[in-house]
Amino acid sequence: MTKQERAARTRHTLIRSAAEVFDQDGFAPSSLTSISRRAGVSNGALHFHFVNKGALAEEVEVEAMAILRGIAGPWRSAAEADSSLQTLVDTSHTLVARLQEDTILRAGFGLSADITWKSRWDLRQYWVDWVGEGLSVAARQGALAEGVRPEDARTVIAAATVGLGALGRADPRWWDRRVCTRLWRLVLPRLAADHLAGRLRAEGGDAPPEREVPGTPAPDPV
Amino acid sequence: MTKQERAARTRHTLIRSAAEVFDQDGFAPSSLTSISRRAGVSNGALHFHFVNKGALAEEVEVEAMAILRGIAGPWRSAAEADSSLQTLVDTSHTLVARLQEDTILRAGFGLSADITWKSRWDLRQYWVDWVGEGLSVAARQGALAEGVRPEDARTVIAAATVGLGALGRADPRWWDRRVCTRLWRLVLPRLAADHLAGRLRAEGGDAPPEREVPGTPAPDPV
Repeated sequence: MTKQERAARTRHTLIRSAAEVFDQDGFAPSSLTSISRRAGVSNGALHFHFVNKGALAEEVEVEAMAILRGIAGPWRSAAEADSSLQTLVDTSHTLVARLQEDTILRAGFGLSADITWKSRWDLRQYWVDWVGEGLSVAARQGALAEGVRPEDARTVIAAATVGLGALGRADPRWWDRRVCTRLWRLVLPRLAADHLAGRLRAEGGDAPPEREVPGTPAPDPV
Repeated sequence: MTKQERAARTRHTLIRSAAEVFDQDGFAPSSLTSISRRAGVSNGALHFHFVNKGALAEEVEVEAMAILRGIAGPWRSAAEADSSLQTLVDTSHTLVARLQEDTILRAGFGLSADITWKSRWDLRQYWVDWVGEGLSVAARQGALAEGVRPEDARTVIAAATVGLGALGRADPRWWDRRVCTRLWRLVLPRLAADHLAGRLRAEGGDAPPEREVPGTPAPDPV
C-alpha cells in the first residue's frame, strides 16, 4: 500500500468513525478524542486530515448526500412515465432499509436535524424536495386521482416519510419494511388515478408477495 | 410580594429562560450562564433553585407535558362518540398553533427529539400514543371506512403529524394552519366511514369557512 493509499484509508476510517459517534451522541457532545480512538488513530493523525469537528461533520454530510442521491436520483418525466408513484413507494422502502444498515446515511440525516450543528447539506430538505418533485411529475402525468390537489399529496408524503425517519431514530420498529408498507397501503388508493388502481404495490414493486410469517408478526410501534 | 412569591416567580422565569435557550441551541451546548443571564438573575440564584442543567430540562419537560395533556387529553370513548376523527383533526390544528406561540411546549418537543438529552418525559411518544388510541377508538366506533386497517391509519397519522412537527422546527411554514389542513384534506376521504362523508372538516371543526385571502397565499414548503 502506498503512502497515498494509507492516507486515503485513514481518512475514510475517520469519516466512518465520526459518523458513528455523531449518530450515537449528536454533534455537540462528540469529542475528537472519541472519534480518533474509535478509528484507532492518533489525535495528530486526525488533525492532519481534518482541521476540526465541523470539517468531519461536513465530510460525513457530503458522503451521506452522495448515498442519498444514489437512492433518490433526478426525476426524468419521460423515463419515469406512468411509474412515478411506484418509484416514490419503492424509493421510500429503499431509504428506510438503507437507514437501518448505513451509518453514514443515518448520521447525515441526523446532522440535518441536529440543532447543535448548522448543516450545509440538508439531507432532509433534499428528500422533501425530491418527494415534492415526484408528486408534481405524477400530477402532470395524470397519475393522481381526480380531486386530489398536488400540494395535499406533497404535504402528506413529505411529512409522513420525514416522520417515519424521525420516529425510527428512537424506535427502530418504525423502520420496518411492513410499517412503511402500511403508510402506502392507506395512501395509495386515495392518491392514484383510476387507471392505476390495482397496479401499484404498497409493499414495493419488486417485493415478494406479502405473507404473514408465523412467529414474526409485524411490529406495532403505534 | 412575599419571599415565597418572589422565589416562585424567579423559578418560573428560570424555567422559561431555559426553554428559550434549549429551543434555540439544543441541550448540550446550552450553558447555565446564558440561562441565568436571560432570566436576569445571578448564577447563585439559579443554583439555589436547580442543581444542574438536567434539572432545568426536566422541569421544562414537566411543564410542556402538562400543556400537551391539556391539548390532547384522555380519550373517553363515550363522550367522543362519532367525533373521534374530528377530535384528531382539531387537536392536530391546536397543537401546531400552540407550537408556534408556546416556547415551553416547543422546547419540550425539542428535548424529546434531542439526541444530546435523555428525555424522561417523551412528549413525542405521548402524542404518538394519543393518536394511536384515538384511531383505535375510531375503529371501534365504526368511524373508519371499510377496508381501512386501523394499524395503517395509526401509522400514517402518527408519522405525518410527527413529520409536520419536525419540519416546522426548521421551516415554520410547515406549522401554518393551511398546511395542516392539506394533510387532513387528503387523508380524511380515505379514512372516514361513508356515514361521516361530508361531515368532517379538514380545516378544523370550529374553523371559519376556508377562503383564499388575496395577498396571503398559503405557504408551499414542499
